[in-house]
Amino acid sequence: MPVTVVGSIAFDAVKTPFGERERMLGGAAVHFALAASFFDEVRIVGPVGEDFGEAELAVLRRRNIDTSGIEHVAGGKTFFWRGEYGWDLNTRETLDTQLGVFESFKPKLSPAARESDVVFLANIQPDLQLSVRKQCTNTRFAALDTMNLWIDTARESLVKVINQVDCLIVNDAELRQLAGKASVVGAAREVLSWSKTNGRAVVAKLGEYGAALITRDGYFSIPAFPLETVVDPTGAGDCFAGGFVGYIAAQRDKPLTPTLLRRAMAYGTAIASFNVVEFGTERVARLQMHEIDERVVDLRRMTAFS
Amino acid sequence: MPVTVVGSIAFDAVKTPFGERERMLGGAAVHFALAASFFDEVRIVGPVGEDFGEAELAVLRRRNIDTSGIEHVAGGKTFFWRGEYGWDLNTRETLDTQLGVFESFKPKLSPAARESDVVFLANIQPDLQLSVRKQCTNTRFAALDTMNLWIDTARESLVKVINQVDCLIVNDAELRQLAGKASVVGAAREVLSWSKTNGRAVVAKLGEYGAALITRDGYFSIPAFPLETVVDPTGAGDCFAGGFVGYIAAQRDKPLTPTLLRRAMAYGTAIASFNVVEFGTERVARLQMHEIDERVVDLRRMTAFS
Repeated sequence: MPVTVVGSIAFDAVKTPFGERERMLGGAAVHFALAASFFDEVRIVGPVGEDFGEAELAVLRRRNIDTSGIEHVAGGKTFFWRGEYGWDLNTRETLDTQLGVFESFKPKLSPAARESDVVFLANIQPDLQLSVRKQCTNTRFAALDTMNLWIDTARESLVKVINQVDCLIVNDAELRQLAGKASVVGAAREVLSWSKTNGRAVVAKLGEYGAALITRDGYFSIPAFPLETVVDPTGAGDCFAGGFVGYIAAQRDKPLTPTLLRRAMAYGTAIASFNVVEFGTERVARLQMHEIDERVVDLRRMTAFS
Repeated sequence: MPVTVVGSIAFDAVKTPFGERERMLGGAAVHFALAASFFDEVRIVGPVGEDFGEAELAVLRRRNIDTSGIEHVAGGKTFFWRGEYGWDLNTRETLDTQLGVFESFKPKLSPAARESDVVFLANIQPDLQLSVRKQCTNTRFAALDTMNLWIDTARESLVKVINQVDCLIVNDAELRQLAGKASVVGAAREVLSWSKTNGRAVVAKLGEYGAALITRDGYFSIPAFPLETVVDPTGAGDCFAGGFVGYIAAQRDKPLTPTLLRRAMAYGTAIASFNVVEFGTERVARLQMHEIDERVVDLRRMTAFS
């Protein structure tokens, strides 16, 4: 059964110190799906407008992603984001956001999607995430991402849906904000304490510094793969999540041991490092599995000490 | 032969969300010396005023640090720094700096100090660092730290002294500024390219995210030890440097292999994590070697994946 991801499918206009693109395929669900597709079958669910055509679908289909859950809204326009990054790519300014078809998106999963055993709720309004979560009655592993906007404006729903998934995957700044704690590990443990039954893990995405995995009794940290040039960080976090969740999905009947989760972190890290060396989906769209495997080996070499 | 560290010996006034101290022992050379003292003999060199007394010296002497190189300036006042940290301890504001005896400091090493085989030039004006570097004619390993002020105001001297040491140990923001490159690894490789004979390694201190070691053909990254509460980050970077350089110093005749350098990174990381859980030197002053060893084991456990 494929991994189902529900979230934004977008056109992005991005300017970085290394160039710009006026309109390219983007969106959290797209980056996630491409990354996860290296490990398992993936079904993408989200709305697009009439401006979304065969060229965009082809990028997904070439990676065997099931696009039947993409909702084409007649007369609608696809979600659009325009942003510009600062010189060191650690700051970015949103210059324009046009929700388009996302404004009235009410996710309704197909019978097949409801049976998914692995689900990723990309960053959308928490009530929509809750609705998707409730439709999936057969999950083995569910994870979600969110953002500062929802922590500010829809905290109650957000906490509710966090307590109904196995894993929260967020930036460290968002994690601190969510828990009201300055320490990443302290904030993660706080979130894990909210539910006795769910919430096995929190992943803090640390941007160029890597990612940390916090469970009730464990901690694991992995650096980002070192790159001399980052061209466009857009979607790196979603790629990470796609690699992480996709790897877990592919392990089918295996228990979610620390060993398995750590390896998933390494695969997420490896894919994200390819994402950022070109604009948008350009590099990941032509990535090969052996390149990912090699990078995981490199990451192990770069972190081991005796 | 002891490790010699030349740099600031200070009184700090620090306010953090967890409390404040109006006047406590501080300064880069002090934090470095205390950390390095767990591995090797240490000699500290720097000026103090008449306000610097037995109580402060006792903190150093209890760790068997050679204080004969501390220059007591008659009528002078010890370097003073006052700062306040923001809620997540990642931002800090300098509220007052009084150079005092540091204003006219001209480091003149004793004959014994000149023979040191390991020297650390803590963050002081680069021309003074150059002067110290030239006085030490017998070094096996020399390292230095610096800051944004000197990159802005004394770049030429700074580059000169960097090219005469084996290892540069700086914050990542300073490294980027120094090399004019956004990527940490790119900036480090740039600095390493400045000298053909020296400059074996660059260590980028990443604050709460850990540290990275970059050599001409290698890369190693280690996260900070995860802490639920950080009380006072002052001196953490100097503690790290003290553990790192001290560990290297203690290895005497062993070649500086990647294995040795990585282990040194782990020891620096371990000691820095103790420094930040109390104010100033309070925690490290009563630290025990077995606690450091245990933390290195923990760090290995928290970073390993297969």
